Amino acid sequence: MKVLNVVKIGGNVVDNPESLEKFLAMFNSLEGPKILIHGGGILASEISARLGIETKIHEGRRITDAETLKICTMVYAGWINKSIVAALQKIGCNSLGLSGADAGTVPAKRRSPKPVDFGYVGDVNPAEINSGFISSLLGRGITPVFCPVTYDRNGTLLNTNADTMASSIAIAMSHHYYTRLVFCFEKRGVLSDPEREDSVIPLINSQGYRRLREEGIVSAGMIPKIDNAFAALSSGVSEVCIKHWSQISHNGGTTLKI
Amino acid sequence: MKVLNVVKIGGNVVDNPESLEKFLAMFNSLEGPKILIHGGGILASEISARLGIETKIHEGRRITDAETLKICTMVYAGWINKSIVAALQKIGCNSLGLSGADAGTVPAKRRSPKPVDFGYVGDVNPAEINSGFISSLLGRGITPVFCPVTYDRNGTLLNTNADTMASSIAIAMSHHYYTRLVFCFEKRGVLSDPEREDSVIPLINSQGYRRLREEGIVSAGMIPKIDNAFAALSSGVSEVCIKHWSQISHNGGTTLKI
Repeated sequence: MKVLNVVKIGGNVVDNPESLEKFLAMFNSLEGPKILIHGGGILASEISARLGIETKIHEGRRITDAETLKICTMVYAGWINKSIVAALQKIGCNSLGLSGADAGTVPAKRRSPKPVDFGYVGDVNPAEINSGFISSLLGRGITPVFCPVTYDRNGTLLNTNADTMASSIAIAMSHHYYTRLVFCFEKRGVLSDPEREDSVIPLINSQGYRRLREEGIVSAGMIPKIDNAFAALSSGVSEVCIKHWSQISHNGGTTLKI
Repeated sequence: MKVLNVVKIGGNVVDNPESLEKFLAMFNSLEGPKILIHGGGILASEISARLGIETKIHEGRRITDAETLKICTMVYAGWINKSIVAALQKIGCNSLGLSGADAGTVPAKRRSPKPVDFGYVGDVNPAEINSGFISSLLGRGITPVFCPVTYDRNGTLLNTNADTMASSIAIAMSHHYYTRLVFCFEKRGVLSDPEREDSVIPLINSQGYRRLREEGIVSAGMIPKIDNAFAALSSGVSEVCIKHWSQISHNGGTTLKI
């Protein structure tokens, strides 16, 4: 089975043109077929603020009303996605930007408005992903670049968590490829001491993860990322790693095992 | 040779959700492979105004500075393009939104800054269009939906006139298909009397066009559209028509002939 790298890159890198350029060069150096999923960055919040659109938060999570959906779609599917595609084309990586609506690649279901109505937010079922079309792009040497926007098959676009999008796509592609999922962010991996960059935990299995959570070592922001990672491993993805974006083509970071 | 419809739809339709829905239903009813190219609409100007970005115009033409390019890319490639794709998916048309950067479909050359620097504006050479990839999408039953954003192969996105984009794509595709180019807008065709909607000129050939221009019958806004139409006809496109967006699946409008 051919190896496929599915790489998620967060907003912090997307927001910094120099980091982004360096990251994309490293991403491009990965051999074989690859898929990039990018997050949103702070541009959406910036534009919202400049337009006077209030950011509504419930228990730390953003509520996507109609205006916010428009801004997210403009920023994620428009500026960020096309800037990344143009930058990859420049360095010889034939990329194609996609939202989940394009070619029906990633349909989603709008999250139930109860107990909390998060608005235009979509959850993805990996079984519904159009992995055949994505494979056909990879087979032509094209690198798909996904933004975290999906759709509900009924004409409505939906905002989707980029980590979830990455793990769902990795799960769907694991039927066709030996799939490696890499979450890139601004830390060197999962840290046992958030103050010390050299405290990377090299390997976490599900037992170990339970212990880390009980001891409060894994931070709140890291929990959904690791949950996504284990969901991916238990659904067919062969390897999952969490690492600094500058280490994408190197060893290191935190490897997750069931 | 198989028939391909290449349809350009202007901003006025894009701005009105009801008109857009009706238009897309009619577009979807066209048999066989088809490509849609959409314009920008007033949303870009609206967002620019709300963000306090000054619109610079030189002799009636917009100058695309860095901020304006960002807005255009957000609005055209983001909100408008993905909304159209989601709306087409809803009615069973498997569409895929593209900027010219995606899969290197439509490279462009930044317009010379002399005599007037129009900023990030790109002109397209139809010979450089990746018609092979576009054909492969059509062959899979996918309908490409292009926004008027291109790129310069050197990492920079460019704003491109949507009429020019449509005629360039039609020219490139005419090597693979019997290509019909349809410019849809809010008039019923080229009018001999702009005050009378029933004064549609059914057929214009190049001689007739010269006369209409000399007599001042063709309005300033119509001239680039007709110029694009004749350029397309003399470069391989089989039929070109200018008509109201509601007549796309009917006869009528103005047909152009060399």
